Amino acid sequence: MDLSMPVASATPGASLAIDGERLWQRLMALARIGATPRGGVCRLALTDLDRQGRELFVQWARELGCSVRVDAIGNLFARRAGGDDTLPAVATGSHIDTQPTGGKFDGNYGVLAGLEVLATLNDAGIRTRAPLEVCVWTNEEGSRFVPVMMGSGVYAGAFGLDHALAATDRDGVSVRDALRAIGHAGDAPAAVADGAPRFGAYFEAHIEQGPVLENAGVTIGAVTGALGQRWYDVTVTGMEAHAGPTPMALRRDALLVAAELVQRVNAIALAEQPHGRGTVGCLDVFPNSRNVIPGRVRLTVDFRHADDAGLARMDEALRAAAVDAAAPGVTVNVTPVVDFPPQPFDAELVEWVRQGARRAGLSCMDVVSGAGHDAVYVARTAPTAMIFVPCKDGISHNEIEDAKPEHLSAGANVLLHAMLARAGIA
Amino acid sequence: MDLSMPVASATPGASLAIDGERLWQRLMALARIGATPRGGVCRLALTDLDRQGRELFVQWARELGCSVRVDAIGNLFARRAGGDDTLPAVATGSHIDTQPTGGKFDGNYGVLAGLEVLATLNDAGIRTRAPLEVCVWTNEEGSRFVPVMMGSGVYAGAFGLDHALAATDRDGVSVRDALRAIGHAGDAPAAVADGAPRFGAYFEAHIEQGPVLENAGVTIGAVTGALGQRWYDVTVTGMEAHAGPTPMALRRDALLVAAELVQRVNAIALAEQPHGRGTVGCLDVFPNSRNVIPGRVRLTVDFRHADDAGLARMDEALRAAAVDAAAPGVTVNVTPVVDFPPQPFDAELVEWVRQGARRAGLSCMDVVSGAGHDAVYVARTAPTAMIFVPCKDGISHNEIEDAKPEHLSAGANVLLHAMLARAGIA
Repeated sequence: MDLSMPVASATPGASLAIDGERLWQRLMALARIGATPRGGVCRLALTDLDRQGRELFVQWARELGCSVRVDAIGNLFARRAGGDDTLPAVATGSHIDTQPTGGKFDGNYGVLAGLEVLATLNDAGIRTRAPLEVCVWTNEEGSRFVPVMMGSGVYAGAFGLDHALAATDRDGVSVRDALRAIGHAGDAPAAVADGAPRFGAYFEAHIEQGPVLENAGVTIGAVTGALGQRWYDVTVTGMEAHAGPTPMALRRDALLVAAELVQRVNAIALAEQPHGRGTVGCLDVFPNSRNVIPGRVRLTVDFRHADDAGLARMDEALRAAAVDAAAPGVTVNVTPVVDFPPQPFDAELVEWVRQGARRAGLSCMDVVSGAGHDAVYVARTAPTAMIFVPCKDGISHNEIEDAKPEHLSAGANVLLHAMLARAGIA
Repeated sequence: MDLSMPVASATPGASLAIDGERLWQRLMALARIGATPRGGVCRLALTDLDRQGRELFVQWARELGCSVRVDAIGNLFARRAGGDDTLPAVATGSHIDTQPTGGKFDGNYGVLAGLEVLATLNDAGIRTRAPLEVCVWTNEEGSRFVPVMMGSGVYAGAFGLDHALAATDRDGVSVRDALRAIGHAGDAPAAVADGAPRFGAYFEAHIEQGPVLENAGVTIGAVTGALGQRWYDVTVTGMEAHAGPTPMALRRDALLVAAELVQRVNAIALAEQPHGRGTVGCLDVFPNSRNVIPGRVRLTVDFRHADDAGLARMDEALRAAAVDAAAPGVTVNVTPVVDFPPQPFDAELVEWVRQGARRAGLSCMDVVSGAGHDAVYVARTAPTAMIFVPCKDGISHNEIEDAKPEHLSAGANVLLHAMLARAGIA
């Protein structure tokens, strides 16, 4: 049953569909650059492998008739002219750098889905009114250089170009030198504030990197925004002592207090459903000896929430928990280390994603992005939305990352229709 | 007010007192062998430093007129003949090996307090009816070779001589070779089962290694027995996942379950007061990354209790806690790794310790030993008791281990009177 038929038949291009096989072949071809023996990809930002991946993208983009622009932080923009080329571009994209033990789909999918949109329009002989662009953002993963989401962060003004260019890897190589070495230090302005063009709209297709869609049996996630994040370092200080000779009443056990904090972090997130998330990911015990009462524990807290008021409540609750959990002779110190605001996506664009799914007869649900993406920065400069497709067991940043070809095709079709609807037909 | 005066005046030798300054000088002299820059001692078992310490002991013992016996596991016995030398010896002692960052008093105090008892009797011209012996037990600490409490363990038959001699250090050197290298592979039988003489009684003076006496402001601990121990390895297995994209309801967080177990271990011990103790000393999180939900946690449990029934209740409660704490998709596996039975000391000897303290006008309270000591093994073969004195902040196995000279003198005086009372005057 295709509820979208009446709409589709009334809309030029509505019967278009991408070539799933071609998309898959391109994904597999790109995945061979930096392929790992266990089936993943290791293609760190601004390495020679990254250069090879970038050049493959440029080759494909040119074969599709695009011009390609490179900016000062190495972001690539493949441009398909519009009927009115003075209009701001309707853009899409993602990144092609990976984690050291990364997968084939994280980032790469969004870039190649964008190329597939252009190829499909070429095949159908359709020119859009607004121009289309496909972006490859530099160093999204942050594995080799920090800050993460570097290219889109410079673009949106989250931090300065010079700051990004000066970042060095473990061998002391700077972003500036690495960009030159691979020939991708472009001359186009990188930041919107410096004259980089604003988009009319930006869509990004991405594997979900979480279990929600798979768990719900839904193909398309219409991403309504990205959760804000607040990260903390917590130190619990008691007194180490021998487990044998020290009676319970005379202990200053740091781990016992830390255990209470782990539970409180969980409870704080449960009180902020559906979007509140709280995680203690690191916990280190000192001296970590079988028969010594722990004298000190360091742990991290990662809070996420869809709105600032929620993050503020979680912050306040953590500080209260630190006071409550502290015991005689055991102190708790809480230090904020990251504060990243929530980023709602554009309501109209999210609706185009929902409608795109409906037109293609695909199941769709609203989701939020718990992780960071280039789209989260781009959203500071232009109307933005994201399209999620399921990934196996919600796993990413792992060589076993996997996604079904039919889900990848489905997401690309939604992207096609959302971009087409936004750009218009010339 | 000295309530013991009427008793003391009726008992020959009751006015005797050890020479605290001489005891302290011997402690400091022994502590120079293996002294560390931070004021501690590193004198690992069967090293050349251990040989130097042993030879100083032998020299002092011979100066006091003792014969010295070395057994097949390197235990040393300095013997002062009794009026009736066919009686079983009334013995005392401890060990002189230390932890790598050990202190001046742990073990050494018990050995030198024993020599000081003999010196005091020499000075007073008192011969006891039963012979007296001062023991130096080989490798109590277990830092270089396991099992710990090796010399007393072989003596009491806790494990075999050949098993102990075959133990190797990290460089592959065996106890057998190390004993030969330092010239302390003796020919006397090491095990009671092989003909090593049983004692008529065994007393051991030791720093408490815990905070109870200091906290109570009491000088002498009459040790009524040693706690039994049960140790466990616990593995909690969930599923690692990204902290951002994974909603609370779809998590399988191993650390959250581990935190519950840490609290349950504490509660289990609190339900078994005054002597129950429960400690999670090690806790390791995998992958231990700030924004990854922990997929696996390994932790250790150390339970102690004064009686077997209590340990059995704690064991049962831990297994129930493992079932209760497990969550959907998170399993808990509990593996027992050590089971060491409680060891009550001899009621009559403990009473001699209390009376010895009373006679010397010293504050005294009953305590239990939470840690292992050579006395705990010797108690399997002869009536045994221990005398504890306070140590600063309850700290030991640390270079900052410290004890007050007046407390060390007080403990040695109690030892003197307890041994004298037990051995009788010839």
